[in-house]
Amino acid sequence: MFETIDPDRSLSKEEYDREIPGLRERIGVLQREFRDKNIPVLIVFEGWRVSGISSTINQLTYALDPRGYRVHFTQRPDDTSRMHPLLWRFWVRTPARGHTAIFDRSWYTDTLLEMRDGDRKPAIPAQAIDDIINMEHLLAVDGTVIIKIFLHISKKEQKKRLKKIREVRPEIIFAEDRKRKGLPEYDTVLPTLEHLISTTDTPGAPWTIIEANDRHFTVVRVFNTIIRRLEETLAGSHTTVVSSPDAEITGDDTRTLILPSVDLTKTLPEDEYQHRFEACERRLHELQYSIHSKKIPVIILFEGWDAAGKGGAIIRLDRALNPRCSVVEPIAAPDPHEKAHHYLWRFVKMLPKQGNITIFDRSWYGRVLVERVEGFCPEQVWRRAYDEINVMEDYLVRSGYILLKFWLHIDPETQLKRFEERETDPLKTYKITEDDWRNREKWPLYAMAVEDMLHKTSTPSASWTIVESNDKYYSRIKIMETVIAALESALAKNGKTGKKNVSAQKK
Amino acid sequence: MFETIDPDRSLSKEEYDREIPGLRERIGVLQREFRDKNIPVLIVFEGWRVSGISSTINQLTYALDPRGYRVHFTQRPDDTSRMHPLLWRFWVRTPARGHTAIFDRSWYTDTLLEMRDGDRKPAIPAQAIDDIINMEHLLAVDGTVIIKIFLHISKKEQKKRLKKIREVRPEIIFAEDRKRKGLPEYDTVLPTLEHLISTTDTPGAPWTIIEANDRHFTVVRVFNTIIRRLEETLAGSHTTVVSSPDAEITGDDTRTLILPSVDLTKTLPEDEYQHRFEACERRLHELQYSIHSKKIPVIILFEGWDAAGKGGAIIRLDRALNPRCSVVEPIAAPDPHEKAHHYLWRFVKMLPKQGNITIFDRSWYGRVLVERVEGFCPEQVWRRAYDEINVMEDYLVRSGYILLKFWLHIDPETQLKRFEERETDPLKTYKITEDDWRNREKWPLYAMAVEDMLHKTSTPSASWTIVESNDKYYSRIKIMETVIAALESALAKNGKTGKKNVSAQKK
Repeated sequence: MFETIDPDRSLSKEEYDREIPGLRERIGVLQREFRDKNIPVLIVFEGWRVSGISSTINQLTYALDPRGYRVHFTQRPDDTSRMHPLLWRFWVRTPARGHTAIFDRSWYTDTLLEMRDGDRKPAIPAQAIDDIINMEHLLAVDGTVIIKIFLHISKKEQKKRLKKIREVRPEIIFAEDRKRKGLPEYDTVLPTLEHLISTTDTPGAPWTIIEANDRHFTVVRVFNTIIRRLEETLAGSHTTVVSSPDAEITGDDTRTLILPSVDLTKTLPEDEYQHRFEACERRLHELQYSIHSKKIPVIILFEGWDAAGKGGAIIRLDRALNPRCSVVEPIAAPDPHEKAHHYLWRFVKMLPKQGNITIFDRSWYGRVLVERVEGFCPEQVWRRAYDEINVMEDYLVRSGYILLKFWLHIDPETQLKRFEERETDPLKTYKITEDDWRNREKWPLYAMAVEDMLHKTSTPSASWTIVESNDKYYSRIKIMETVIAALESALAKNGKTGKKNVSAQKK
Repeated sequence: MFETIDPDRSLSKEEYDREIPGLRERIGVLQREFRDKNIPVLIVFEGWRVSGISSTINQLTYALDPRGYRVHFTQRPDDTSRMHPLLWRFWVRTPARGHTAIFDRSWYTDTLLEMRDGDRKPAIPAQAIDDIINMEHLLAVDGTVIIKIFLHISKKEQKKRLKKIREVRPEIIFAEDRKRKGLPEYDTVLPTLEHLISTTDTPGAPWTIIEANDRHFTVVRVFNTIIRRLEETLAGSHTTVVSSPDAEITGDDTRTLILPSVDLTKTLPEDEYQHRFEACERRLHELQYSIHSKKIPVIILFEGWDAAGKGGAIIRLDRALNPRCSVVEPIAAPDPHEKAHHYLWRFVKMLPKQGNITIFDRSWYGRVLVERVEGFCPEQVWRRAYDEINVMEDYLVRSGYILLKFWLHIDPETQLKRFEERETDPLKTYKITEDDWRNREKWPLYAMAVEDMLHKTSTPSASWTIVESNDKYYSRIKIMETVIAALESALAKNGKTGKKNVSAQKK
């Protein structure tokens, strides 16, 4: 790939001065158009060491309205980022609609640095490349325009620049992160880099390699690359990225329904409940300590019918946990600033760091439940969400997360009984609203959505636990014992392989 | 203080079991009432080492709805916090309206740890105590109920517990931050601690010292303390915290008005502008490097009439800066999640870390400008904002921030001319809206608000620069040269005293 590119291509000062004012004006106008159309733009800059990324970005931002862009300078991950999977810190910095995020180095540099430790010929696992492709795909499908640029200089030019920098411009160090090693030497990394770039060159997130020995040529090419892609987007002429259509969904009558076969007669007598509950509390307390010291992050999410007992189950689980390292995240309708991002964005921000437990009281499944049934998002959007969720959950589980998903199931009669109790009990009336009664009328629609959810998002790495919840004692014990079993199993595996948590990032 | 308290007070198991269910129920009900009334609650736990903070908080949260509280476990500050002033990481974690934030150790531990380095008899500067009082006062006046609890055990009890922990419960280390030294020994810190607690025991944020040798007694006292304060708040019977009334404000005709005396005839010819502008760009570029390497954080904020040229000035300033270490924050109306906090909260979150520059395009002065004039907040709220702003800015400047405040001034005729240009120029129409014309009609009201703002918030540490902006060339150069002079002056001081940035926190 690189050998076909001549890094020496150049542009005279006169040509540069003639071209640049028009390019600046054009990109300024485009930035405003994208702001008005609420389209997010993500620009990634990568390149050889001293290939001029910083000065190129300076030229680019010179032409932009500073109220609409942000440059993310990728230095060593900080404490918090190191306690999350590699892609996390980039996910949470993806641009809001109408905004431009410019990454001065990105997940590509991080991936290269991550893989080469002690390895002379670095190889990148196919899975790590898939993870990148998946993240970019999620963003592209959601409407983010992704532009990836690699600045290519020759080995000779690199040597020349390094020499010059050391001699005459010590302040360039400003632009370097002295505590983080740069990419490995040119020759060492070349084949890996070619592989990485060619495999991640997708229609939704294409690469442009730009000849960068001559700064005038570089800057003009960068402007033209970005302008072309933005114009193609406006014209709708570039390849539209769509997720693969999903054949097997709603209305497939031949499928075995899950909910009708749930045995809701299961109960637990009160004395047995008390006994097992206390045992669970003690065991959870111990396990949380182990989880914390082994740095395993845990996600426990709850979905279920209104009045199925989510709140009560969560309170009891929460009480058994040390609040220093656990938190409950109640999920309501998104705020405007959350809506301005990919719908997974706000959940990614809430993910627990290593050794911590986050309990989600409702979750990202809102998209395929309430948002689907109430028509809060278009059909193709919730349809593609199943895949998106599976991709995210798979990434989390491979990164070392324990992920537990509970569906609390009751029948309509039990719900009615509990609604009526809530209306008459003054201590509970606050729990019931008009919305609850309205949702209840849509029970069959919700049931269909739940069936689809269970069918399509019960994956080997992240299966659903259906909790028979007509009896609250039975329900709560099943939840706590399921959590305990999962933590014990993870700790046993962790102990056996002695593996370090794979999500741990290097400094 | 401590000698009058008998840490041995105790409660039998029977009494405890009789009392606790009622206390739990009561606090649960109160939590919901505070949620419904949108009142934020902030509970601080401090205490001697092994005084039982963690287990007490566990008992407390046991009774709370986990969807409404969050425990903040104060460990060593992370990378980002260390690059901000001491109180910053607590400010950004203050509770939203209707929520409860529980601090498991807090700014008190941090202040004690900060002060004792190499000092056998630690003394806390009066200023550090004032900073704490000021922060708590800001929150209390804004409606936050603050409850501060110190768990007091005897020296003998502490020794006993430490011995027991080492022997039989190694997992208690879970609760400790092994990389952070605890408070100094009992005797060493006692006088300092007494001083700190007695001076920060204010009506809006009172301390309760709780005898903690006996765990039953402790937990019941903690419940009762919190319940009493919450009930007093609901009854309106505790001392209402109000800021000192402000005598000298609007309508004071004897005051010399500032705006009429601004000389708006100042201009700069284009060639001189070009020449000085380029010199400014070069100099700013160099200075940013020095600022970065000296780890000085810089805030540059812009307020001004519509069409006074804020946008243009900011773009030009931004272009001269390396985007790796500078950012522009455009301030619009707050989002709902921002409105749920103290109005300074969102700005505190945006403060630059050491070595970085943040340019605010409009700022916290919105409260005393647009919010005052348009009636977006009650009169007593914007009236007290002057003091609040002065307190915050003074804290920032003492913490090492460079703070530059620009008011871009034009006359109504110039505004009219620019509005009309914007309406006719197709490239500029996006800049003008109905709102602009509406605001223009309120010119005299805004002028009065600006006068008050300039009078009341021009302090020695954070003075306003009024920029004569009828001529854009003059305006831009004055801004850039003012920034340059301020950076040079700060660097000169920094170099002379060789002082470390005082905002730098210890690990």
